[in-house]
Amino acid sequence: MIIEKRLNALGLSLPEVPKSVGSYATAVLSGDMLYLSGTGGVDNGEMPVYGKLGKEVTIEMGYSSARGAVLNLLSTMKAVLGDLDRVEKIVKLLCFVNCTSDFNRQPEVANGASDLLIEIFGEEKGLHARSAIGACSLPFNIPVEIEMIVRLGV
Amino acid sequence: MIIEKRLNALGLSLPEVPKSVGSYATAVLSGDMLYLSGTGGVDNGEMPVYGKLGKEVTIEMGYSSARGAVLNLLSTMKAVLGDLDRVEKIVKLLCFVNCTSDFNRQPEVANGASDLLIEIFGEEKGLHARSAIGACSLPFNIPVEIEMIVRLGV
Amino acid sequence: MIIEKRLNALGLSLPEVPKSVGSYATAVLSGDMLYLSGTGGVDNGEMPVYGKLGKEVTIEMGYSSARGAVLNLLSTMKAVLGDLDRVEKIVKLLCFVNCTSDFNRQPEVANGASDLLIEIFGEEKGLHARSAIGACSLPFNIPVEIEMIVRLGV
Repeated sequence: MIIEKRLNALGLSLPEVPKSVGSYATAVLSGDMLYLSGTGGVDNGEMPVYGKLGKEVTIEMGYSSARGAVLNLLSTMKAVLGDLDRVEKIVKLLCFVNCTSDFNRQPEVANGASDLLIEIFGEEKGLHARSAIGACSLPFNIPVEIEMIVRLGV
Repeated sequence: MIIEKRLNALGLSLPEVPKSVGSYATAVLSGDMLYLSGTGGVDNGEMPVYGKLGKEVTIEMGYSSARGAVLNLLSTMKAVLGDLDRVEKIVKLLCFVNCTSDFNRQPEVANGASDLLIEIFGEEKGLHARSAIGACSLPFNIPVEIEMIVRLGV
Repeated sequence: MIIEKRLNALGLSLPEVPKSVGSYATAVLSGDMLYLSGTGGVDNGEMPVYGKLGKEVTIEMGYSSARGAVLNLLSTMKAVLGDLDRVEKIVKLLCFVNCTSDFNRQPEVANGASDLLIEIFGEEKGLHARSAIGACSLPFNIPVEIEMIVRLGV
């Protein structure tokens, strides 16, 4: 429970396990790779944020939503794996930012997810490949949607 | 041929094997993982649908296009694998929905793909991770583009 | 150094190794799979191109940017792998094209990446799965962002 202790030491706790919002699973384990479905970060006890970057959502709110998406993904991972210490490597993130067509600071928003993963798992396990992309819209008008690939230890 | 018999029992048949629309392959097999290129669902014998959700394409038409995309993906899989019974798990879908900037019901559209995969492969093999994303535009103005990762049995 | 010799024979050279533009790695190796972060192609010694397809960026400029993105990805790969000859298969590309909502020729733009990969690696190793998607905006207003999955030989 090293990872969860680190989470708590950062003053964070895992939110309720997110539910699928369609006929899909929130995660699928394939060999030693865990594929996590696209997830938003609006449900972490704080005020949910909706809307677009470049319009009603600031970079700070977007950063915080990306951070919240990671907390939701960690909660899903804990439900699937039992223990977050089984994570060997955060392999890849695909971050979609709901934004206007003239907004081009997606990396700063996505850093909310990346920074938290490195804080929690450290550089060796937590540093990952990533793409950050502008989306003209996202489900339920969430500002950020993140999917993730994780490798487990043996 | 269990999977194809199930397809036929559902009144469905595999469309013509889709062709690549650029200098790429419609699928690449890597170890036991099959990576399928982004594919639309406009060519299944019915009237092709073009356009955007939130504008000229209804949720029902989008749902049906997502279903058609899965039929095209299955046809590609059959061409590559010989037999769809080799599928062990539908691992992950990435669904892009061509839509206006105020459309946020992407999951309902993507369910057209997910529902059909579960009907055909059952929950154990067919239930998958998924992301559904709004795209401001898609190739040829198709309403839905889906890429898929599949694991094969040994 | 067969692959680099082929690059040079084509009159091409690897650009400076691209830097991460956020708190992520430009590539992560997981087993025999290399996951490369989304990368643009504006920095290859030529005039950088910014903007959207369907607006100020022509298909030719987009094609050239996609080609430049591959050169950047190859430069990252060389930095990680030491030798590009270790590549066994280009498995998959995900190509985002920064464009207007009525632009639907993403595949022609993405061909800039695919054509170059096949020129360099040949059909057997270079032919890949691919999705080409319209994005309403991309980081720094680059016209094309490409992420890639590559399998290494043993």
